[in-house]
Amino acid sequence: MGFLARSASAAEWKTVAKAVSTLVEEATFEASAEGISFRAMDPSHVALIDLFWPNSAFERYECDKQFRFTVRVAEFSKLLGRADAKDSVEVSSSDEGRLTIKFSNSYTREFTINLVESTAQPTPLPKITFNAKLLMTSSTFQQILSDISVVSDHITIEASKDKVSFAGRSEQGSASATLDRRSPEVLELTLNEPSKATYSIDYLLNITKAAASNQPMTLEYSTKMPLKLEFKLGEQGGKIGFYLAPRVEEK
Amino acid sequence: MGFLARSASAAEWKTVAKAVSTLVEEATFEASAEGISFRAMDPSHVALIDLFWPNSAFERYECDKQFRFTVRVAEFSKLLGRADAKDSVEVSSSDEGRLTIKFSNSYTREFTINLVESTAQPTPLPKITFNAKLLMTSSTFQQILSDISVVSDHITIEASKDKVSFAGRSEQGSASATLDRRSPEVLELTLNEPSKATYSIDYLLNITKAAASNQPMTLEYSTKMPLKLEFKLGEQGGKIGFYLAPRVEEK
Amino acid sequence: MGFLARSASAAEWKTVAKAVSTLVEEATFEASAEGISFRAMDPSHVALIDLFWPNSAFERYECDKQFRFTVRVAEFSKLLGRADAKDSVEVSSSDEGRLTIKFSNSYTREFTINLVESTAQPTPLPKITFNAKLLMTSSTFQQILSDISVVSDHITIEASKDKVSFAGRSEQGSASATLDRRSPEVLELTLNEPSKATYSIDYLLNITKAAASNQPMTLEYSTKMPLKLEFKLGEQGGKIGFYLAPRVEEK
Repeated sequence: MGFLARSASAAEWKTVAKAVSTLVEEATFEASAEGISFRAMDPSHVALIDLFWPNSAFERYECDKQFRFTVRVAEFSKLLGRADAKDSVEVSSSDEGRLTIKFSNSYTREFTINLVESTAQPTPLPKITFNAKLLMTSSTFQQILSDISVVSDHITIEASKDKVSFAGRSEQGSASATLDRRSPEVLELTLNEPSKATYSIDYLLNITKAAASNQPMTLEYSTKMPLKLEFKLGEQGGKIGFYLAPRVEEK
Repeated sequence: MGFLARSASAAEWKTVAKAVSTLVEEATFEASAEGISFRAMDPSHVALIDLFWPNSAFERYECDKQFRFTVRVAEFSKLLGRADAKDSVEVSSSDEGRLTIKFSNSYTREFTINLVESTAQPTPLPKITFNAKLLMTSSTFQQILSDISVVSDHITIEASKDKVSFAGRSEQGSASATLDRRSPEVLELTLNEPSKATYSIDYLLNITKAAASNQPMTLEYSTKMPLKLEFKLGEQGGKIGFYLAPRVEEK
Repeated sequence: MGFLARSASAAEWKTVAKAVSTLVEEATFEASAEGISFRAMDPSHVALIDLFWPNSAFERYECDKQFRFTVRVAEFSKLLGRADAKDSVEVSSSDEGRLTIKFSNSYTREFTINLVESTAQPTPLPKITFNAKLLMTSSTFQQILSDISVVSDHITIEASKDKVSFAGRSEQGSASATLDRRSPEVLELTLNEPSKATYSIDYLLNITKAAASNQPMTLEYSTKMPLKLEFKLGEQGGKIGFYLAPRVEEK
């Protein structure tokens, strides 16, 4: 057996598939003895996902040599979607060209898909210093993004010592949400200096929806610099980092 | 501040938006010291809504001079739809050209939209004597309308001393519902004389859906004359009246 | 009154309509003193439904002479869909050309539809010996069919002494589910001889969805021969039998 990863449920695999589906149609994962990782940009090079899922996150994990596998994300998500809440999930490959997904409960269901030739390029991580850091739940962040998206396709985030505000505007009108540092929604707000930058809403909305409801997410950014959104993948050290370039023409 | 109306929830605003959306794409409201009113016909002049929402219905209400504001109903509804159940809602304007909608809870979200140039004409209320009056819940009325709509696009209402019947027919077949005066669904049935008239179902179905589920609605009409449907907007004297012309060619 | 059948709810009528809708657009039912029957094939003669619903299944049943009625299934289903859970249902005809459906509760709603000229031909039942018999719930069967349908439009069923497996494959990949004889999902597994055959999934998925959730279904078949699926229609002896020809080119 070259590669095998067993989990008590499909929940985390679904999060992984949802997250990578926001950027790419074909996803190349790297499995090593340490765990599973994924790093890629979207075709327009605006956003990047950096995901690591350690071997300790699995009920059983085997990987005797580096294994790289590329799946069509829509197909992979569809299969994962067939898992019941009480199914354990085993993803494995004993043959470079195929991946097997097995759901077990009182009986076993098994899918085998053909892997895709990878065209993935090495993706270096951006080196950035962040001047503002905000911790909120995915639900709060999603509500704010959805609000702003009603009038605009971009969002301006402005953090100061006492509050953080989110705003968008278009010909149609404007929308904003302001959170005081003491608001219960603000789990943490740390600043090196007041920061303000503008980003595309769609990317943020999609990645926020990949996180579980009410899951804490860390948002870091600096004025006119990229943003980083990070959230846990399970409770064993797995995490998903999402980087997004700022919009150049700030309005 | 020119105009400000604050409510404990968005529920009534949503009802208002839903009701006016059944007739017009752009709605002109009149705010005065007494409250907010709306009166308009649909483009084909078949239906009319007459709405009044007194200042006492609001947690806080300010209007120092007459204020007329016209909104795109779809846009207005979409914004109101962003309110959470526990949000208080403040609709205000300090500038003739704009309207601000603010949702507050542990933090505040705010939308500002550009108002539209009004093309609304004064709409006189029809003067009609009604010979039949029926009180039912919105849910009963909606079920009956939906039933008849399966086979027909118009409904004939026939009220006599002991019962009221609703019927429709087409080439496809026929549908009817008959309520005895003593049926628990008939909250009230009062007649000056037996009455029978036919109306378009779509208008009635849409306005019935604007009312809250199980909300009492008064239906009044006379033979071959317009119908009036009325229901409360909140518990402080607000109400929505809906008038509908009969279909001329009765089948 | 020529024909009248009253039930405490519309549930079984809905199952009947759903089942026949999987095969035909116009359905011809035969009512006799014994009950209601339906037998027809789909236009491509791949599948057959044989349904019997005895008079004892009804609260009240009258049929003084053979009565044959043909309905447009979509229209009939739509009307049955208007029934509330607590409505009793009466289907009747006092006139060869029309059928009346009455829902009663605290008030009565009534639909009359025009019957269609029947073009139904007598449909003999296939005479087949089945070598494998499996009893499972509709839910288990539906999950397996849905799984396989993700990768294939046909399913191969293979039953041996100890287990039964379901499999499908396409260029995209393969899917399978294997149930041990002792699995709680296998309510019964009886074999004359090991059997293997392939069928279209769509037909099976649709008829499985017509059954109530978690309803036991009997699946019988022989190698490269038709399959029969049977489930109860109520608790008074009614039943729906579904026959499906095997796919000739087995892959």
